[in-house]
Amino acid sequence: MKNLLLRSTARALFCSSQSYHSGLSTAVTVQPRHQNGGGALGSFYWQKMSTLPEKKDQRSEENKNSNDSNTVVSSYWGITRPKVKREDGTEWPWNCFMPWESYSSDVSIDVTKHHVPKTFGDKFAFRSVKFLRVLSDLYFKERYGCHAMMLETIAAVPPMVGGMLLHLKSLRKFQHTGGWIKALLEEAENERMHLMTMVELVKPSWHERLLVITAQGVFFNAFFVFYILSPKTAHRFVGYLEEEAVISYTQHLDAIESGKVENVPAPAIAIDYWRLPKDATLKDVITVIRADEAHHRDVNHFASDIHHQGKELKEAPAPVGYH
Amino acid sequence: MKNLLLRSTARALFCSSQSYHSGLSTAVTVQPRHQNGGGALGSFYWQKMSTLPEKKDQRSEENKNSNDSNTVVSSYWGITRPKVKREDGTEWPWNCFMPWESYSSDVSIDVTKHHVPKTFGDKFAFRSVKFLRVLSDLYFKERYGCHAMMLETIAAVPPMVGGMLLHLKSLRKFQHTGGWIKALLEEAENERMHLMTMVELVKPSWHERLLVITAQGVFFNAFFVFYILSPKTAHRFVGYLEEEAVISYTQHLDAIESGKVENVPAPAIAIDYWRLPKDATLKDVITVIRADEAHHRDVNHFASDIHHQGKELKEAPAPVGYH
Repeated sequence: MKNLLLRSTARALFCSSQSYHSGLSTAVTVQPRHQNGGGALGSFYWQKMSTLPEKKDQRSEENKNSNDSNTVVSSYWGITRPKVKREDGTEWPWNCFMPWESYSSDVSIDVTKHHVPKTFGDKFAFRSVKFLRVLSDLYFKERYGCHAMMLETIAAVPPMVGGMLLHLKSLRKFQHTGGWIKALLEEAENERMHLMTMVELVKPSWHERLLVITAQGVFFNAFFVFYILSPKTAHRFVGYLEEEAVISYTQHLDAIESGKVENVPAPAIAIDYWRLPKDATLKDVITVIRADEAHHRDVNHFASDIHHQGKELKEAPAPVGYH
Repeated sequence: MKNLLLRSTARALFCSSQSYHSGLSTAVTVQPRHQNGGGALGSFYWQKMSTLPEKKDQRSEENKNSNDSNTVVSSYWGITRPKVKREDGTEWPWNCFMPWESYSSDVSIDVTKHHVPKTFGDKFAFRSVKFLRVLSDLYFKERYGCHAMMLETIAAVPPMVGGMLLHLKSLRKFQHTGGWIKALLEEAENERMHLMTMVELVKPSWHERLLVITAQGVFFNAFFVFYILSPKTAHRFVGYLEEEAVISYTQHLDAIESGKVENVPAPAIAIDYWRLPKDATLKDVITVIRADEAHHRDVNHFASDIHHQGKELKEAPAPVGYH
């Protein structure tokens, strides 16, 4: 809980519009409310980007970019993002997420849950996912890392499509959506973070890159139409997709335990995003990713259930921030 | 600043995954760190939705939905969203935003800023926006409320399209995007909040609803292709669109000051979202909305400038949380 307080206290300071408009020329130190609860994320030291010296020891592409950008930021619009530093003075190396968006995953969630297909739509969704499963198993066999990576490039598409279509509907109908736009976009971002993590562990080959481009081209358009025609079945489809993801990650974990897959150290981005201990390993990472997928499974089956009850999503407040 | 600390302290508590999994049967009171800074948002009283009694005094469709949803929430996935209450015990009536997402707008931003078109792309973007401006002025004349409402249904589309395309690109190329996905989706949500505010003030007529549906159908697809072909010009176009929005809202403010438009009380949703005083009026609302548009103007011209410098957006950290 203290972690959460710290995380969000930092967000408060970061989000302050003053941070963009005040002419800070010297560094400002931010003291958190609790010194004892935050660990690596305990407090943040931030200063206007333009006052920061260049650094050589870059940990990631993200970090490199944030330094290259000094030239870009000379735009006369003068927009800069305050830099966030850790308690130990090291630079927060990620732009794709901030410390207060990191979280401790709830790994106690039931990973064996399954929605028994009842209606024709349920069965169609279930069979479609099982068919895709067979194809991917044939292609990847026991290359668990690649399989996971490709899975995330697909799993991050439906929530973005759903969120966008609900956004457009909200504008068209002048209606609220009960927070479902935010909930789905959070899911899309979470899936993208899984991918950013896997990429640190597995380098995609040229034919895998080609496969992703093709698969996305087909899947994005197909799911776009699918969601317009039947959001009920589309969410059920994603629910089953997530069930398969949970199964895949369980197999991945078995392979790590049996020694088939080396239990390498966790990438830095995963340690920061899921607040894992510094000595966390691949096994810890796959465990929290599997928990995320189980949460998405529940949210999407829940969304489908709402439609099955003849209601619209906006009639049930969305589980925003559900991890 | 204290407001921000309070807001985010509440977020921390809300975001706690335990809130979904602990079997709270009684209410939990959350005490904020500072009692003196929060005003209406000072502290939050929350409990599991299923334990809440039905209420009759509904303030908005949002609120009604959240109560109807008790039946839906009986889904065996058992997902419920903890309810948030204000210090005075009244229910937080919105699902589309939470107290910690509200903010005090920076109205000191220069509302007269203009990017002088230099390149062919700039001129094309500028002329296109001016052409659309003429059309909308012909249609709306001095119906400022309707004009603003229709403007928001259009202005909320580009950032969603941009954010989605950057998300898909990030997945396709296994690349980070420097936080630009989040920054653009935040802009889309902010524009949608403008619409949700205007809807409380102006009831769209059947022909305006028809116009929105048609305009969105055309504009979404056109901007989708536009952004794929030239994100540089697309962001410039949005920059100019926001410049026009600022001009429109300035005219709206003049009309209020001259008495042409009645300075009615601000809608409840606007008071909560922008942390306005309880006695805020339409003039206060239009002033903060204009400031938001000025911020979006800067962000989009900035994004276009990045492309003009032959760089990609990911090379400059995005102004996440820039209001």
